[in-house]
Amino acid sequence: MSELAPLIAQLGSQARAAARVLATAPAVRIDGALVAMAHELHAAQADILSANAADVAAAKANGQTAALVDRLTLDTKRLAACAEGLRQVAKLPHPVGEILREWTQPNGLKFAKVRVPIGVIGFIYESRPNVTVDAAGLCLKSGNAVILRGGSEALRSNTAIATALGRGLAAVGLPTAAVQLVPSIDRDVVRLLGESVGVIDLLIPRGGRGLIETVVKTARIPVIKHYDGICSLYVDQAADLAMAVDLALNGKVSRPGVCNAIETLLVHRAVADQFLALAGPTLTAAKVQLRAEPGALAAFQKAGVPAVAARDEDFRTEFLDLILAIKIVDNVAAAIDHIETHGSHHTDTIVTTDAATAEQFLAGVDSAVVLWNASTRFNDGHQFGFGAEIGISTDKLHARGPMGLEELTSYKYLVRGVGQVRS
Amino acid sequence: MSELAPLIAQLGSQARAAARVLATAPAVRIDGALVAMAHELHAAQADILSANAADVAAAKANGQTAALVDRLTLDTKRLAACAEGLRQVAKLPHPVGEILREWTQPNGLKFAKVRVPIGVIGFIYESRPNVTVDAAGLCLKSGNAVILRGGSEALRSNTAIATALGRGLAAVGLPTAAVQLVPSIDRDVVRLLGESVGVIDLLIPRGGRGLIETVVKTARIPVIKHYDGICSLYVDQAADLAMAVDLALNGKVSRPGVCNAIETLLVHRAVADQFLALAGPTLTAAKVQLRAEPGALAAFQKAGVPAVAARDEDFRTEFLDLILAIKIVDNVAAAIDHIETHGSHHTDTIVTTDAATAEQFLAGVDSAVVLWNASTRFNDGHQFGFGAEIGISTDKLHARGPMGLEELTSYKYLVRGVGQVRS
Repeated sequence: MSELAPLIAQLGSQARAAARVLATAPAVRIDGALVAMAHELHAAQADILSANAADVAAAKANGQTAALVDRLTLDTKRLAACAEGLRQVAKLPHPVGEILREWTQPNGLKFAKVRVPIGVIGFIYESRPNVTVDAAGLCLKSGNAVILRGGSEALRSNTAIATALGRGLAAVGLPTAAVQLVPSIDRDVVRLLGESVGVIDLLIPRGGRGLIETVVKTARIPVIKHYDGICSLYVDQAADLAMAVDLALNGKVSRPGVCNAIETLLVHRAVADQFLALAGPTLTAAKVQLRAEPGALAAFQKAGVPAVAARDEDFRTEFLDLILAIKIVDNVAAAIDHIETHGSHHTDTIVTTDAATAEQFLAGVDSAVVLWNASTRFNDGHQFGFGAEIGISTDKLHARGPMGLEELTSYKYLVRGVGQVRS
Repeated sequence: MSELAPLIAQLGSQARAAARVLATAPAVRIDGALVAMAHELHAAQADILSANAADVAAAKANGQTAALVDRLTLDTKRLAACAEGLRQVAKLPHPVGEILREWTQPNGLKFAKVRVPIGVIGFIYESRPNVTVDAAGLCLKSGNAVILRGGSEALRSNTAIATALGRGLAAVGLPTAAVQLVPSIDRDVVRLLGESVGVIDLLIPRGGRGLIETVVKTARIPVIKHYDGICSLYVDQAADLAMAVDLALNGKVSRPGVCNAIETLLVHRAVADQFLALAGPTLTAAKVQLRAEPGALAAFQKAGVPAVAARDEDFRTEFLDLILAIKIVDNVAAAIDHIETHGSHHTDTIVTTDAATAEQFLAGVDSAVVLWNASTRFNDGHQFGFGAEIGISTDKLHARGPMGLEELTSYKYLVRGVGQVRS
């Protein structure tokens, strides 16, 4: 552990030097690097897949779950998709240099607020090696140097990938330290990255609750978290019930293990019996376990739908599984109250044909994304049309919701004068 | 200390409830509250000034500096200025509710990015009681509840002020918990505020280095710091030297104790002798101590200007005093290098008639505010035309440079559909 601090300090000082180069690098050179990185990924395919095979074999030998092994595994198709992702990012507009606002003050001073890179980003993530490519591409496109700390299971894969990416940077004359992988699986790396005051400008942890909590506890530099999503769907009395069933099914079943899946279903009392009798069989057919508070449980029983009693903590839990907590509420105000006190301010949706009720919900729910007659699963950078996404922020500062290229930038003010002094 | 944690938890839960009310409170009611708060400050003038007199007497008895006692002291004029400040804030446009961007995706989903309050802000500051009024006004105008933790020397004054402000809130039917003062001078309050995960959304410390470092070390919630300003003025070879003297004098002397004063003077070698012979007498006449590296020291000696030898740490120090560190550089690139490696990324200015050199400096210096032919003292929310300022952020995330009302807001996405699901 004693040599870890100097290692992180060295990576940090290399990253800072690289960040200064990137901040004024021409856009065409950055795009050239992205294309060259894609090319080098393809050229290094044999090395990368063989490193990945070793990671996968070790994960299996260590008794890792099938889900983890699947996320860890690369093949020619997945690697080609990574390379294509870099080429797509190269085609996106450049965020850096955009003039966000310009104005002149009465004393003649001309002000411009311009978009600049953040500088050095520390990115901490778990076992998917394709995230290494995505994060490197997005940070580079936005003019930032990045220090990557991937999952220990993927170290061999990530090392081979980072080596290839470095060749792409070098091919266009950009510093290879623009993308660096921490070559250590020591858990203390997370703390050391978080203590890199004045070196790393932003730490982005993306992973399980344990990882995020460790980062929050130890970091002394700004952090943008990617925490849990306890997302709700509220079925209003004025809902199109068939639409509500579709949205509930899509929200719960299309991909239950992600943060924008619904965990809670709230139903207006006036339509509860009718809606739950309709939705219950559809959800149970999709293997969803229904955990219902007493009123909803009675409605399910009346309709002959299997359900179990919900405990209070079910309404505060991110199941990430085919489980749904269900509750009857008296009106939209009660739904908003429930969401504000039990939810995680991530993504919530209302189903209603009543515009006034919808607007009350949109105004009253303080979540990153609030929807009306649409699935919570749309909280996603690609679905927003951002072209790219490094994650979904659960913070309210700097970036909230899907984080694309713009959210990886800061700004500075340029002030042009003719010798003005302040009196 | 044992009853402190429940106290902070109670203030926090009251603030959260108030924040929910403020988030959807009509703009006219908020402005009404600001005007009522101004009125109540005036009505409580006798109470506030008598509490302040007790604080001032205690500060003097404790041997506090004259500067601190001056900052602490209120009189009818200063209090009237505070009230007038609230009335001015009431007249500013409302940031909350602004639609920042609207677009429609090919699937028909309508997206809107709208400005919302941050929620609950913790504001930690030092001895000036007028800051209590300013911070309360700005947080309220931007729809946030605030928990104020002022300096221990000002507790009696701040308590009297907060009581008056609370009457103003109550007068228009807004929750008095929208503005709360921590009624304790225990230093552990700072730690407890910083650990209020899920309760306080943002902590803003404004004060000395010790305070900021304590906050950064202990906080687990987002922090926007107001750290030091090691600001530079660079005199290029193509500078108007008379203008450069004016800007150096204004940057150093107009208010040496503030963060946007210059601490470092960099001079292009080609004009060093001429400029230092011109600036030296003006600066020393204004009682500025000149700390010069060897080249500059020789130039001063040649011109008969008193100066002392600079040590390396002089170029990394925020003097906050009539002291200036002076260095000769070979060109604008060397000036940028010096600023990037020694400065604090706060405010830096170049004096030159050469537009290309100026643009190189504006692009290459990564500071919150970079100026050309203008005084560093313009890094200020009022000078920017923001109408108000809660401080000057030295962070790169969320808010950089002057923080006005917009920087006290977050955003959320509203998505309106017709039943779209994600495939």
